[in-house]
Amino acid sequence: MSKFLKKRTKSLGQPPGSLVHIGEIRTEKTRISVTDYNEKQYAERTDVPVEECKGYIDTSTVTWINIDGIHDVSIIERIGEQFGIHPLLLEDVMNTEQRPKLEDSDQNLFVVLKMLTYNEEKNSVDSEQISIVIGPNFVLSFQEREGDVFTPIRERIRNGKGRIRSHGADYLAYSLLDAIIDNYFVILENFGEKIEQLEEEILEDSTGQTSAKIHSLKRELIFLRRSVWPLREVINRLERGESKLIKKSTLVFIRDLYDHTINIIDTTEAFRDTISGLLDTYLTQVSNKMNETMKVLTVIATIFIPITFIAGIYGMNFEFMPELGWKWAYPTLWGFIALVGITMIIFFRRKRWI
Amino acid sequence: MSKFLKKRTKSLGQPPGSLVHIGEIRTEKTRISVTDYNEKQYAERTDVPVEECKGYIDTSTVTWINIDGIHDVSIIERIGEQFGIHPLLLEDVMNTEQRPKLEDSDQNLFVVLKMLTYNEEKNSVDSEQISIVIGPNFVLSFQEREGDVFTPIRERIRNGKGRIRSHGADYLAYSLLDAIIDNYFVILENFGEKIEQLEEEILEDSTGQTSAKIHSLKRELIFLRRSVWPLREVINRLERGESKLIKKSTLVFIRDLYDHTINIIDTTEAFRDTISGLLDTYLTQVSNKMNETMKVLTVIATIFIPITFIAGIYGMNFEFMPELGWKWAYPTLWGFIALVGITMIIFFRRKRWI
Amino acid sequence: MSKFLKKRTKSLGQPPGSLVHIGEIRTEKTRISVTDYNEKQYAERTDVPVEECKGYIDTSTVTWINIDGIHDVSIIERIGEQFGIHPLLLEDVMNTEQRPKLEDSDQNLFVVLKMLTYNEEKNSVDSEQISIVIGPNFVLSFQEREGDVFTPIRERIRNGKGRIRSHGADYLAYSLLDAIIDNYFVILENFGEKIEQLEEEILEDSTGQTSAKIHSLKRELIFLRRSVWPLREVINRLERGESKLIKKSTLVFIRDLYDHTINIIDTTEAFRDTISGLLDTYLTQVSNKMNETMKVLTVIATIFIPITFIAGIYGMNFEFMPELGWKWAYPTLWGFIALVGITMIIFFRRKRWI
Amino acid sequence: MSKFLKKRTKSLGQPPGSLVHIGEIRTEKTRISVTDYNEKQYAERTDVPVEECKGYIDTSTVTWINIDGIHDVSIIERIGEQFGIHPLLLEDVMNTEQRPKLEDSDQNLFVVLKMLTYNEEKNSVDSEQISIVIGPNFVLSFQEREGDVFTPIRERIRNGKGRIRSHGADYLAYSLLDAIIDNYFVILENFGEKIEQLEEEILEDSTGQTSAKIHSLKRELIFLRRSVWPLREVINRLERGESKLIKKSTLVFIRDLYDHTINIIDTTEAFRDTISGLLDTYLTQVSNKMNETMKVLTVIATIFIPITFIAGIYGMNFEFMPELGWKWAYPTLWGFIALVGITMIIFFRRKRWI
Amino acid sequence: MSKFLKKRTKSLGQPPGSLVHIGEIRTEKTRISVTDYNEKQYAERTDVPVEECKGYIDTSTVTWINIDGIHDVSIIERIGEQFGIHPLLLEDVMNTEQRPKLEDSDQNLFVVLKMLTYNEEKNSVDSEQISIVIGPNFVLSFQEREGDVFTPIRERIRNGKGRIRSHGADYLAYSLLDAIIDNYFVILENFGEKIEQLEEEILEDSTGQTSAKIHSLKRELIFLRRSVWPLREVINRLERGESKLIKKSTLVFIRDLYDHTINIIDTTEAFRDTISGLLDTYLTQVSNKMNETMKVLTVIATIFIPITFIAGIYGMNFEFMPELGWKWAYPTLWGFIALVGITMIIFFRRKRWI
Repeated sequence: MSKFLKKRTKSLGQPPGSLVHIGEIRTEKTRISVTDYNEKQYAERTDVPVEECKGYIDTSTVTWINIDGIHDVSIIERIGEQFGIHPLLLEDVMNTEQRPKLEDSDQNLFVVLKMLTYNEEKNSVDSEQISIVIGPNFVLSFQEREGDVFTPIRERIRNGKGRIRSHGADYLAYSLLDAIIDNYFVILENFGEKIEQLEEEILEDSTGQTSAKIHSLKRELIFLRRSVWPLREVINRLERGESKLIKKSTLVFIRDLYDHTINIIDTTEAFRDTISGLLDTYLTQVSNKMNETMKVLTVIATIFIPITFIAGIYGMNFEFMPELGWKWAYPTLWGFIALVGITMIIFFRRKRWI
Repeated sequence: MSKFLKKRTKSLGQPPGSLVHIGEIRTEKTRISVTDYNEKQYAERTDVPVEECKGYIDTSTVTWINIDGIHDVSIIERIGEQFGIHPLLLEDVMNTEQRPKLEDSDQNLFVVLKMLTYNEEKNSVDSEQISIVIGPNFVLSFQEREGDVFTPIRERIRNGKGRIRSHGADYLAYSLLDAIIDNYFVILENFGEKIEQLEEEILEDSTGQTSAKIHSLKRELIFLRRSVWPLREVINRLERGESKLIKKSTLVFIRDLYDHTINIIDTTEAFRDTISGLLDTYLTQVSNKMNETMKVLTVIATIFIPITFIAGIYGMNFEFMPELGWKWAYPTLWGFIALVGITMIIFFRRKRWI
Repeated sequence: MSKFLKKRTKSLGQPPGSLVHIGEIRTEKTRISVTDYNEKQYAERTDVPVEECKGYIDTSTVTWINIDGIHDVSIIERIGEQFGIHPLLLEDVMNTEQRPKLEDSDQNLFVVLKMLTYNEEKNSVDSEQISIVIGPNFVLSFQEREGDVFTPIRERIRNGKGRIRSHGADYLAYSLLDAIIDNYFVILENFGEKIEQLEEEILEDSTGQTSAKIHSLKRELIFLRRSVWPLREVINRLERGESKLIKKSTLVFIRDLYDHTINIIDTTEAFRDTISGLLDTYLTQVSNKMNETMKVLTVIATIFIPITFIAGIYGMNFEFMPELGWKWAYPTLWGFIALVGITMIIFFRRKRWI
Repeated sequence: MSKFLKKRTKSLGQPPGSLVHIGEIRTEKTRISVTDYNEKQYAERTDVPVEECKGYIDTSTVTWINIDGIHDVSIIERIGEQFGIHPLLLEDVMNTEQRPKLEDSDQNLFVVLKMLTYNEEKNSVDSEQISIVIGPNFVLSFQEREGDVFTPIRERIRNGKGRIRSHGADYLAYSLLDAIIDNYFVILENFGEKIEQLEEEILEDSTGQTSAKIHSLKRELIFLRRSVWPLREVINRLERGESKLIKKSTLVFIRDLYDHTINIIDTTEAFRDTISGLLDTYLTQVSNKMNETMKVLTVIATIFIPITFIAGIYGMNFEFMPELGWKWAYPTLWGFIALVGITMIIFFRRKRWI
Repeated sequence: MSKFLKKRTKSLGQPPGSLVHIGEIRTEKTRISVTDYNEKQYAERTDVPVEECKGYIDTSTVTWINIDGIHDVSIIERIGEQFGIHPLLLEDVMNTEQRPKLEDSDQNLFVVLKMLTYNEEKNSVDSEQISIVIGPNFVLSFQEREGDVFTPIRERIRNGKGRIRSHGADYLAYSLLDAIIDNYFVILENFGEKIEQLEEEILEDSTGQTSAKIHSLKRELIFLRRSVWPLREVINRLERGESKLIKKSTLVFIRDLYDHTINIIDTTEAFRDTISGLLDTYLTQVSNKMNETMKVLTVIATIFIPITFIAGIYGMNFEFMPELGWKWAYPTLWGFIALVGITMIIFFRRKRWI
């Protein structure tokens, strides 16, 4: 989330479709796991060699091939060959700077989006790019590293819980997307809490750090919006049902997913308005505080400057100053000073400064 | 209205269509009441067991089944089964974080929206999610708790006043929506009064609290807009008359409802502009006040600092200061001080500071 | 123009189409006047009883029925019955909070909009809601009170001047709309003058009141925009010529009306930009003034504080201060003070503060 | 450019299509000049009486009739009669407050737009309304006064240079529009220079006048945008080639014109962003300067106030002040004062104030 | 990048299609180079005379003719004649102020866009206009000067690497566009780094220069957006596949190009939001600093002004001041001064000022 753009200089000048990994390498070894199932059967296998993947999809079962690690050109290339994925799409898989999008070729659907997970330790958002290829009876998912939000789905497949075992690859793909998007709500929830904390801080006891915090929230939101807005079109295009790979029975679920997406976008927009309101409030608070500081200075200075002047007058060493010899001069002077002081205080009370 | 998003963590990882209540539980027991009528007959019954509901809708009468309390999964599930409501819609009923929307399946129309009521005691807005299912001759309404804005409709059905008894389920549903949306005007009226109070406060006598009040109004408005904007599309889709469940004679009423919705949106937008104008005005007021404070300080300091210096000069203890022995030195000095003072006052008058 | 929303609580819970007057009662008695004409004939009658209106429209002449006063439910209801106006439209006639809109039923066209007139005495804008029903050979116009912008049209009908006597009801309705919209230009002209005055005030001699004036202009503009923007769609729909009640020969005039509306909207948008620019300019002026105040204070303080310190030093009563006994100490000190003063002045000149 | 809206009160209440001149009278006498040409012939005549104009267009040659001065109702009326121009269009010709627009009647195309010329003497923009009527073999151009940007076109017709003599009236009209729009670039160029000057002024040496200058630029831009934005639609509609009066061979030129228009709009939008950025920069500069002023005051006051206090202490006249009699008291005090001063200076250095 | 608009006065009044170079002359001599290839053959030649170009395109090979230098009217004119390019397009080639656009005539496709390259020496962006004409078996590219981003493409053609040798002119054109657009990412990467530097500067240690830097970034972004936004439509129109010159097999690559363009636009918009956030943060920082300055002044002044007054009192020379003779007066006074000081410090601690 820190860097705006990752170095892509190494891909400059390469012919289009050349596979170059853009981004950080986040796992050492690429691991392929296969989950193969239908209503009756179920098989799961990890660390599958690339060449054996193809075998699974020739059967009538639904096959989910999950690839953790996308930096190894040769593996990605061989997978592409086996499943007939266009080189340009493979390029997208390996470029982690991708904007969420949907590509609909005749043989498969290609979806790329961001998987956001909330990292409780660092109190920050982890972003990972995930590419999903939907074929007639298989789903490929490419992740940057191990660890994802799909554990409940794996459980459901294992246990045959829910509809998932009796539906096809399109429903599996929907389930993956649903799991990713459901996690966005957790991010938003967390974001909302941060805003509320900041709100309290501003209204009660803001410090010089507050503006940096607002800035940081704003920047996170810009990132969030970039991940979320394009999703709208991606899911909308899925929902429109133009691809034969999505069965009609699955469309109702995708419509539900679309509603979730709209809800997320709506919330980010509300967050945006709220943060911009926070900044305004903070600025007026700063102005108010400055005004208060000024008032303290002005009150003190305005009361003491004239009476200090009076004291200065009678500190002069002129020979002929008749007041100096008067008996009641000193107490009279104190009376005068008190008078000036009280007048000032009344004046400031009227102006509601004190 | 306080929290941005309610905890939905418990629904994470559930298969889609799993019923999980998201939100606060606002009533202890779920209560089902049935109103059954046609032009001649009329029957009303409260605390109806779920299983007996189905019986009412098999007759030719119009049946309105109102459910208060949506947190009990088993009851919602059984209602869903009886009336053939898709599990995803039931999920929406139970998730109080829903965005207003319309779902048009072949058998029924599903509308979810927010019922806003003004709570005079707390001087705040109560928000409750309400889901309405429109079938051929029945209407289901799911509320979070007892107490709603439908009392006048119940009265009209009882007394056979207005068109309601001679029209079908679509007109009943329209009446419910109309009652909800009419209450939005009360909220807006109240909101407008708050803005006017704030306006007076700012123009006459703003305090440090004012910016917090503006912020709070802004936040309420963000909430209001989120409830109101999606309504536009919901009602518009109803009006377009694509569903067979809405008779043509009812469409003219729904068009009227649409006009109300537009009017509400228009007003919230005008509120938005007004509040943003208020903030600008407040900020300039704060700046003006600060300037005034500065001027008081500057006037006092500028007049007294030079003459205090003069007094300091003649307080010095040099042996050879000829002025100290002069007879008219002291009165001359006072004259000089008066001169400096008057010059300064003329200077500030010219600058229009005093 | 003062209140955001009028009390509509009394209409809450009424069945739709119930006639309830929302707004201020602005005339005591409802007065109906009829103007009946064709190319040859001409008749005018005031205070016509409701029941006699119907008679006029059964002839082939064009009939203009003008109703001043819309608060009397029974009269409005009887008019509605006679001319076959839908109860929902009558509800709109009586609710002065209506947004400008066009309703196209099979029998008639219903237009509601705001008639704005400039009140020279109060230097403010009077707003009145006017509803126009266009039938095959009649036009109904509902006004909140007597007095309107239609006098020139009445004159033209009386004198047979212009096209009006030889054209139908659609041309009469166009003439009414044209008269109303032409008056908007007067409002805008007046508004523009206010902006120019404010502009001069800000650039030359702004006071603490200025921000209140900007705020008030902004608020008036928000009101104006709400009256004007929806007109665009109203006139546009008329122009599209979908209603059989508008003859093709009248369409060219309505297109002209549409151009006027766009021109008005354009001007309000330019006003909006200008006012927002004014506010920015005012704020920078306030900042500049504050800076100037600060500079005066700083210059005075910076010159006198050090030399006052010097004077303080030689006011000390130490026994062993050799300078005190020196002969040229006093003049030397004055020289030193002059040096400090001049250095400071050069310093400030360099900084361009004085 | 100074006034927002010209008095149109005199046209209030007139029947539509009544000719009333709105705007300033900018030429004394209306002058009509005729240019008549085809590939072989060429004739030019000035001060042509209205009645003789018609004769020119009955021939097969292309005729350009230019009218300087639009305030004379009778002349405009007679021209309208001769060329069959709708009274509403004539009204538009005479109303100099017109928004750029295109009117496509069956017989002719009517275009109204603003001719902007840069007045080098006054360093300002002159705006003049120009109406162009395109007929099958003639072009009418109505200008507010003599003097225009068409001299090069007249030259080209005279000399038979370029395509103009061999093309029809549509190409002539295109040439006129092209000449007008090409001049917009000069205005923009000039505007851009003003922005750059202001930019330098702000970054180097801004004064109190600067905010007035920014405001004035902003206002000019609002005017410019109002002249330019509607052009987009005007030219776009011409380009769409719906009128039979525009030959297909001319369309490619009009497409080029459209590109120019988009380029102009683009540039005005970039100007808008730049000016808004300038204002922000200016405001931060003012804030920075104020801060600098404050720092000077604070540094001086903070150094001298404490040491002046010390001097005051030893100026007291108590009988029992042991320090007064000490021999090294005076130098010690100076040492102490130096210490305080140096400490303060170190403190401010750390804060990076000096 | 410095000037808003280049002098185009010399083109004023010229007939449309007249060739006039607008912009800076950036190369001395116009140089034409030809690359001619198919799957088997390959030929490259530099400094080709205009007249010999035509010969290359009559063969079945793909010919890429690159022209460096566009200021020589006669050369551009002769090229236009040979390849049948419309004079208006040639005008566009020579006017370096062109907005990116696509022109689709029957014979060829004409694309004009900006080639942005990052100049590491000057740490700035070099912008050059490039026009590409796509014919059935040839591509013309017009550049302002020698040196471009096409070197890798030339290499690929030479070495027969990638698809380029086996594809047609459309793929070559795509490759050129792809190379240009890929370089935009480098610009953005660089831009992002500048933003991040500025961000750190603002949050840690901003100076008076900072606002000028923000302004400069903003202005660069305005320039960038103007180059990038119109590209969206250009590439989108190419992608829609309406031209016969683009083969279907190339469309998938152009869709990829379109995705890149959207990604670039997305990033510039995120930059825009970020910069605007930076400005807000900077402004609050300035305000906070000013407040801090004020506090230092107020604390010092408020502590010392009252005690200086006390010292002034006992510096007075009245004869009858009993305190002056008291033995413990002096230490008591110090005690009092300490008391005042401590009270103040506690007061400021409570206000959290120190």
